[in-house]
Parts: sequence; C-alpha cells; structure tokens
Amino acid sequence: MSDLSTTLEDVPADWAGHGGRGITSTIVAAEVAPTCHPLGPNNKLVIAPGLLSGTAASNSGRISIGAKSPLTGTIKESNAGGTSAQALAKMGCKALIIEGQPKDDAWYSLRMTPEGVTIEKEEELIGKGNFAVVEALEKRNSGSVGVITIGQCGEMLMSSANISIKDPDSHLRSCGRGGLGAVMGSKKIKCIALDAGDAKVEIADLDAFKAANKAFTKALVDHPVSQALGTYGTNVLVNIVNESGGFPTKNFTQGQYGDHEAISGETMHDIIVERGGKPKHGCHKGCVIQCSQIFNDAKGKYKTSGLEYESIWAMGGDCTVNNLDDIAEMDSIMDDIGIDTIETAVAFGVAMDGGVLDFGDSKEMIRILQDEIAAGTPLGRVIGNGAGNVGRTYGVTRVPVVKNQAIPAYDPRAIKGIGITYATSTQGADHTMGYTIATELLAVGGKADPLSKEGQVELSRNLQIATAAIDSTGMCLFIAFAALDDGTCLPALIDMLNARFGISLTADDVTNLGMSILKTEHAFNQAAGFTKEDDRLPEFFALEPIAPHNAVWDFTGDEIDTFWDF
Amino acid sequence: MSDLSTTLEDVPADWAGHGGRGITSTIVAAEVAPTCHPLGPNNKLVIAPGLLSGTAASNSGRISIGAKSPLTGTIKESNAGGTSAQALAKMGCKALIIEGQPKDDAWYSLRMTPEGVTIEKEEELIGKGNFAVVEALEKRNSGSVGVITIGQCGEMLMSSANISIKDPDSHLRSCGRGGLGAVMGSKKIKCIALDAGDAKVEIADLDAFKAANKAFTKALVDHPVSQALGTYGTNVLVNIVNESGGFPTKNFTQGQYGDHEAISGETMHDIIVERGGKPKHGCHKGCVIQCSQIFNDAKGKYKTSGLEYESIWAMGGDCTVNNLDDIAEMDSIMDDIGIDTIETAVAFGVAMDGGVLDFGDSKEMIRILQDEIAAGTPLGRVIGNGAGNVGRTYGVTRVPVVKNQAIPAYDPRAIKGIGITYATSTQGADHTMGYTIATELLAVGGKADPLSKEGQVELSRNLQIATAAIDSTGMCLFIAFAALDDGTCLPALIDMLNARFGISLTADDVTNLGMSILKTEHAFNQAAGFTKEDDRLPEFFALEPIAPHNAVWDFTGDEIDTFWDF
Repeated sequence: MSDLSTTLEDVPADWAGHGGRGITSTIVAAEVAPTCHPLGPNNKLVIAPGLLSGTAASNSGRISIGAKSPLTGTIKESNAGGTSAQALAKMGCKALIIEGQPKDDAWYSLRMTPEGVTIEKEEELIGKGNFAVVEALEKRNSGSVGVITIGQCGEMLMSSANISIKDPDSHLRSCGRGGLGAVMGSKKIKCIALDAGDAKVEIADLDAFKAANKAFTKALVDHPVSQALGTYGTNVLVNIVNESGGFPTKNFTQGQYGDHEAISGETMHDIIVERGGKPKHGCHKGCVIQCSQIFNDAKGKYKTSGLEYESIWAMGGDCTVNNLDDIAEMDSIMDDIGIDTIETAVAFGVAMDGGVLDFGDSKEMIRILQDEIAAGTPLGRVIGNGAGNVGRTYGVTRVPVVKNQAIPAYDPRAIKGIGITYATSTQGADHTMGYTIATELLAVGGKADPLSKEGQVELSRNLQIATAAIDSTGMCLFIAFAALDDGTCLPALIDMLNARFGISLTADDVTNLGMSILKTEHAFNQAAGFTKEDDRLPEFFALEPIAPHNAVWDFTGDEIDTFWDF
Repeated sequence: MSDLSTTLEDVPADWAGHGGRGITSTIVAAEVAPTCHPLGPNNKLVIAPGLLSGTAASNSGRISIGAKSPLTGTIKESNAGGTSAQALAKMGCKALIIEGQPKDDAWYSLRMTPEGVTIEKEEELIGKGNFAVVEALEKRNSGSVGVITIGQCGEMLMSSANISIKDPDSHLRSCGRGGLGAVMGSKKIKCIALDAGDAKVEIADLDAFKAANKAFTKALVDHPVSQALGTYGTNVLVNIVNESGGFPTKNFTQGQYGDHEAISGETMHDIIVERGGKPKHGCHKGCVIQCSQIFNDAKGKYKTSGLEYESIWAMGGDCTVNNLDDIAEMDSIMDDIGIDTIETAVAFGVAMDGGVLDFGDSKEMIRILQDEIAAGTPLGRVIGNGAGNVGRTYGVTRVPVVKNQAIPAYDPRAIKGIGITYATSTQGADHTMGYTIATELLAVGGKADPLSKEGQVELSRNLQIATAAIDSTGMCLFIAFAALDDGTCLPALIDMLNARFGISLTADDVTNLGMSILKTEHAFNQAAGFTKEDDRLPEFFALEPIAPHNAVWDFTGDEIDTFWDF
C-alpha cells in the first residue's frame, strides 16, 4: 500500500503444503518483525483460503486471515465461513498479502479477479457499515462477488474490530477475534471485492476425491453433535454449559445464570420457527452441518444470522441480558459496525462491574453500540478496544482476559481443560484453539472430568495440534467431532488432500503439520517478548471461587508449562 | 487493611542497611507476588524515609514510595521532597507497609504518631482535592503535621495518579510516576497524617556527623549546576535541551520548539520576580540547592510551586503550549487532583496526535483536566490512565512510552544515552533513574557526545547504579552533580552514613548497594514476565528521523542488553 502497487509472486516451494492458518502464520512469522507496532507500516495482513477451499469437499469454505494482532500483540489467525475462501481458491490465490501503508490519508478498496488485483480510491463507502458495503459491492460487480470488509470500528482502528466476510445469502460472517479489522484499517483498505468469474479449482484425481468426500460427508452427518448443531445451532450449549456450572455469569462472578432458559438454543429454535426464520442454515456453500440460523424479529423480518452460542452467552450470561431480541439486535449492530461480539460483550461486562452501566441494561448497551462505539466517542473507544482496555481505563481488577483477549463462554474454574487452552493458546484466550469442551462436556473423543486437572494439559495439547492442522485445510472446526469419534473421518480428509494435490500425506504428516504451526506461532510470540508468565489466567480466577462448585483455578505455572513439552 | 489492624514489627537484620528505595524495593520484592494485579489485594504500598532523612544532613528529606506499579506492571519506587520523610524518620519508622484491602466500600485515613498507627473511617475528604486534604489535616492536627495524600485521580484508580507530600509551606510535592496513587486508592486510604511531635533521630557520632555534613554542604553549594538550579530552577534546561535538538516537540515529531523562549527558565525567572514570587525555594527543610520556586499569577497571587522542567516541557514542548500561565494553571490543577504531570501531558500529546484535541489548545486541556479527568468521564479516564492508554484507545502508533510509562523531556534519538536509561530502567521510561543528561549536555562527570552511541551504555549503567544508592539515602538526586565532579562530596556522604549509624561503609559498599538494588528490581520484573524485548524503545524512534539532526534511535537490542552485564 505504500506505493499502491500489486505484484503476483510464485509460492515458494517450502510453503506449497500450507494453506489457511498454516500459510498465514508461516508468512507472518517469516515476514513481520515480531516487535513491530501492529498498526504500523511493518505489519502485514495475510488472507488465505484453506487447502481444500474451492473444491466440493464438505465444509471446506473457511477463510483464514492473519497478522500481528493489535489486541494481543501475538501472532493471530482468525477464520470464518462465507464465500471468499472459495473465490480466492478458484482464482488460484494461495494468499493475499497486504503490506505497507499509503503515504496519503486516502482510503482504498481492492478488487481481485483471475487476472490480478487492482487498487482504487474509496470514498463512497467510508464511514459506512458492512451491510452497505456488501450492497454497494454487489452493485458494482455482481451478486456473486465475494466481499471482505471492515465497518466503522475497523476504520477507527479499534482493537476489537473484526473483518466481515459475505456469506451465500449476502449476510455476514466474521473473522472476529484479535482486532484484524484494525490492521486492515491501518492499511487504509475499506473492502475487497473478489470476482472469480468461471475459474475453478483443479483436482489431481477427481474420482478418488469424490469417493473420499462421500465417506467424509457421511461421517459428518452421522455424528450426533453434528445433528444437534443442525437442530439448535451452537446455542444448544447454553443449557449444557449452564448445567455444568461453567457458564460465566455477571462478569465471571457466577457459574450459572438464573435466566438461562430465556436465551437457550431450545427457546431460540422455537422463536425462529414461529417467526418464519431458518433454524438450520449454512455459513458457506457445501456445509453439511448447517449450525447457522436466520433469526427474524417479532414481525417476521430478517434481523440477524449466525447468532452463535458465544455471542449469546457474552451478552446474555456475562452481561445478564435475558432477552433474545435485544441480543439479536446487538448482534446485528456489531456485524454492521464490524466488531467482535465476544470481545465487546465481555468488555461491556467489565464496564458493568466498574459501574459504567448496570448489568442487564440492554437498552443502554444498544445505545452505546450505536451512539458511542460506532461514532468513536471516548466511551465508545474505551469499550471498542476490548475488555482489557476497559479494565485498565476503569481500574477494574476482575478482567477475564489472557494476553489481553477476552475469555469466552466457558469458565476455566469449573471446566478446567478449556483454561489450559486459554492460557497456552498462541493467540490469547480462544476456545476454538483447542476445544476441550468436546471431551469435558460432550463426551466426544472420550471423557474428561471438567472439575479435575487430570489429563487436561494433554487433552488441550492434542486438540490444539489437531486444530492447527484443521485450520489449514479450510475445514470448519466442527468436523472435529466426527474426526474424534469416527475412524473413517480423518482418513477420508487425508484422502481428499492427496487427491486434490496428487500427493501422499499420512496421518502423521497432518499431526506434524499441526505441531509445526503451533511452534512457528509460539516462536513468533517469544520473539515479540512473550514468556511463560503470559501463559497464565488472571489472578482473580485463583482468588474467587465460582458457584455452584466453588471451584477455583488451581493449575500451577509449572503444570501449565508442560503444555509445550512436544 | 483487610481487617483494619496495625502492627509494629522489628526490622529484620538483613534489611537494616536499607533505606528509601533500597527498603521499598527490598520489601516489595520479598513480599509482593510479581504477577499479582497491582490494584488487587496482593499488592503492597511501602512508604519509607531515606537512611539520612530526619537528620540535619543537607538535602536528605526525600521520601520513597514503592509497590508494583499499575502503570508499568514493574516494581516501582517514586520519591519526593516535602516533610514526610523527616517525620517518619524521627518517629523511628523504617517503612510503613500497607497491605490488603478493606472488605467494605468505606474509605479510611491513617494517623501515625511515635506511639503507632491508627486507622479511621474517612468521609469528609472523599472526592476532595489534595489542597483541601492538607488544609483539613492541618486543622485536625497541627500545622507541622506531615501529610501523604491522594486526589480524585487516586480515588478513581487512574494509573497516572500520584501521591502528594506536603512541603514546608503546606504546598505539595509529588511522588509522581507510576500510578502509586492508584495503589493507595486501591487500599482505600485517602490520606496519612504524620505527627512526630518532639521525636528526634539519634546520631551515633554527632561531631563526626556535623563535620561531614559541613564538607558535604560545601561541595553541593560550590557546584555550578547547583548554582544554576538555584537561580533558574530545573527549567534552566529548556534552552539547553532545545539547543541540543533533543527537546521533544509536538508529540515527539520535532527536536526543537520554536516558542522555547516563552517557556524558558530565564523567562520564568523574570516573571516570578516581577510578580513577587520566589525564584529560589526548597522543597524540604535542609535543602541547600533550592531549585524549587513559587510562581504567582498576574495579580501576584500564589499559583503553584515546584514547576519543574519536565512538567513545563511536557505541556509546553510536547503539547506546544507557549504560555507559562496556562502551564502553571494546569500544574496547579494536576497537583490538586493528584496526577503525574509528565504522564498526563504526554498523554495529551498522544491525544492531540490522534485528533482528540488540537496541539497547543491549552484552554481545552484545562477544561479536560477540570471537567473530564477530575470527574472521571470516559475521556478523563482515557487520558488519566496515561499515554499508552490513549495510544491503545485511539489507535495512535506514535506513543512515546517504555513499559507503558511516558518518556520524559529528552529525545532519545538526539540524546542517546538517556535512551539507554529509558530502555533499561527497571521502572519504565524515567530520566531520574540514570540521568545521562548530566554528562551528555551539562559536562558533569566528564563529557559524552549525545549523538554518538559510544560509551552510552556504560554511562547509563554507572549512573543507574549510583542513583539506586542515592535514592536509598534520602538524598535528593541533585547531589549527583557535586558527587560526580567534586572528590570531597561522596566521601562526606559516606562519613555521614557512618556517623549516623555507627558503621563503617566504604565507597565500594555504596556501589554494591546500588547494584544489588537494581538486580533485586530486575529480578522482580523478570518474575513478572518482563524480558529483554521490554527493554526497547517504541518502533517509531527507529522509523522517524528527528529534526534538526535527523537522528534516529539506532541501538540494536544486543547493544542495549549489555547494560545488564554486571
């Protein structure tokens, strides 16, 4: 962006086996100085499809975006569904690397076609929300155009700003975590249009690919968790996690929420059906699990989609808002202005703890989202820069963050394995990095007692390794349930990779890939100044027992640090 | 404070040789968990007189306050003049340690007499500024009472909040840096009254002490820098530093300020004399340098005192306010509400860079201080939590901080030795930790070319070691000029220590003391998670040359890290 030029480069041979998170982390680690300012000229934003994206492989449409995070200061990869991964892959793009910063104050938009990338000044859409961007880019191009965009929060460089990805229905999915929208904003890029035309991904062995995809798809659709997700969406977890006593409530002061029924997946399912929404819906073409939904308002008009458990928990449990319509309204606003729902709602919870507004005051939350955060007022900036920023600014000591990123929807005192993931993740607190909930609460991949420390480090390690590999394929993380329980799933996935590229990966290769990605990311963080003291949960988790189990976080530092023994 | 109890404890034998910073850092390192939240129950606030405080030794009235800093996360010691060090020493108090937090929401005040400490509920003074506290405590006790107090900013736990110390004229001196006022606020202590009555410090060998003090005092008053300080105050530096090209201007984008004459020490001297103020004045009894002043307004009415170079630079150069009356007004407000002038003015500079207000708009700065910071509005909290917090909240990349503490009045690109002090100090950017300016610009203790890297690490190391020792004696740092140039000064100081305690320290013992304090502090920081990557200046100093020398910060990490080779 420094000289507004674009170049096409061949993929270095060493990087050929990487896709998705594997390629974003490899490029960031190779090309970004670990100590650079995340919003300065030396950071790079890397956008990549997964290895299988653009093919007919089920659930392979995830896009990965990487950079040094302005929220955590660590390396960061955030992925989402939508249509952009498939568009990039079909155009033969391994990764779009955005570097430098314009010398002027102007804003720009990018347009990619199979012929290359063009950079245009952008004026019309500056200051606009993501919904307006999608509408405008579909007018400028065609309805099938892929869109990657930031809202007002990304323009204002808020470190909770996300990057939005258009989905098949022209609604939005979010690369939510870590403030990558601010990095895109710092490059002065408002939006990227992806026009793949008729381009297609080539498959080395189409028959083998089809056979493997069939077996893979069967494993996915047969798994009971896939089926539950298709029925109730991810929000099926409200009642399950609340029952476990690990549903963080009122800024992590309780482990259960009295009004959980009002926001549960079961309640939401009934509302969606009653109002003519869709309880089952895919965030990208080819998804066979379909955990997304379309949520209509009381008049039956579209309100939001992809209303996930973690967002509902954050607004519902953590801020004690017992009203799904207000939650959906906030979700819609946050999608439009482009800010992470988890980080922002946890920031609201900390602000409530600090007396800035009352717990449960969803009307005030909506006002702050619209009038303060979207407008960039001082209070809007404080909250829009995340839970840690609110804590520092208001002197609150109960601040649920690791590496300055908000802890999501599972209390680590009562569900201890996920605490190991929060502590050791290369990217700050993030449940998706090693989703131990599967084994702790859902009996997937075996069983683990969530209140016991036993085996939790190993569980988190194995899942973090597997996740790093899955995040490289373009696959949705929810294939992991089948992969953990069904012996046909992972071999079929490997068969697809081999058939796609004409190679001969083994299961060991995939495990090694996951380990090497984690180590690459960890080395970046260490060079940025992170130490084992950063692999810790906030002090209050050890000091404040959480009802109903009166559990505290009781892992020692030495126990946590065994995570890296591989 | 957890059970509102007080105890008197004997000084452990190992700590007998420590005073001032030596004892605060020793206690914090021994008793505070390095990873605790600075505003939580596990931090401790330690208040200590120096080894020679309370005696007739010239310039020995500095008080040291230590804790884990909420601004930097490091160990912290901040010292000031005033009357409290002498009162504590006379009562035989080696250190006042405040720990825990009250279980209720009430505020308290402490009162210390030779008989012990009492804790009383405080209601009258909550929400009041420091001036009102001093007035009230003098009424409650007597005019001679020592006062340690926090203003509204400390009550609101702002991480730039200072702790104020009453001076002999019932005005204020500040333990300014590192947000120790927020730690005092987190203990729910508004103020501390020190009533020493007739108590006196015992001297083991009074004749030897008097003789040594005479030699020491002569060395101090004979030194030309002492004399310049007594004439123009610390603000004599405006023209000197500006001439060097290392006067950071407009948020560190220039090295010289066009309007420097308007805010110089020479100009200020004339204004003070013209308005019947005092150009020469001591911040504590026994000071023979008298660099403080009393600055009156245009009507000849008292406005502020102790208007230091760094404060004037921060408001004048960094925010480009070319009006000493506005600067004095802001200094007075900041003293009253209890906030560090350096951190706050540098935070204003970053806010100006981020477009929050215009450079030079002192009326808006005054409004923000009074209506926003003192009132704890969102903007007030953002600025009141320091330069780093403003940078994060507004996405500004030019943020002059090290370990999140604002860089003071000397640009490290054009005055490179001070950059080594900023980078390696155990307490974040702080010129007083190793004042290389003495040698780089004032030809004290030899000469060093400020634009050359040659010898700067060694210079900073030697000064940081000497400073740690001086900060333990209760001596003002300004004895260092004489100590560096006059061979009679340091021996006289050691003679006084020996005469005071009946011991036999050597010069090597003093150097070893300084080294051991630095190592204790460094070890605390490492245990808190700090690494050599934290011993770095912000990236922009390497990327942006500073006029007029077009100098950049060009020390490598490896070069900086040799600092710790001792």
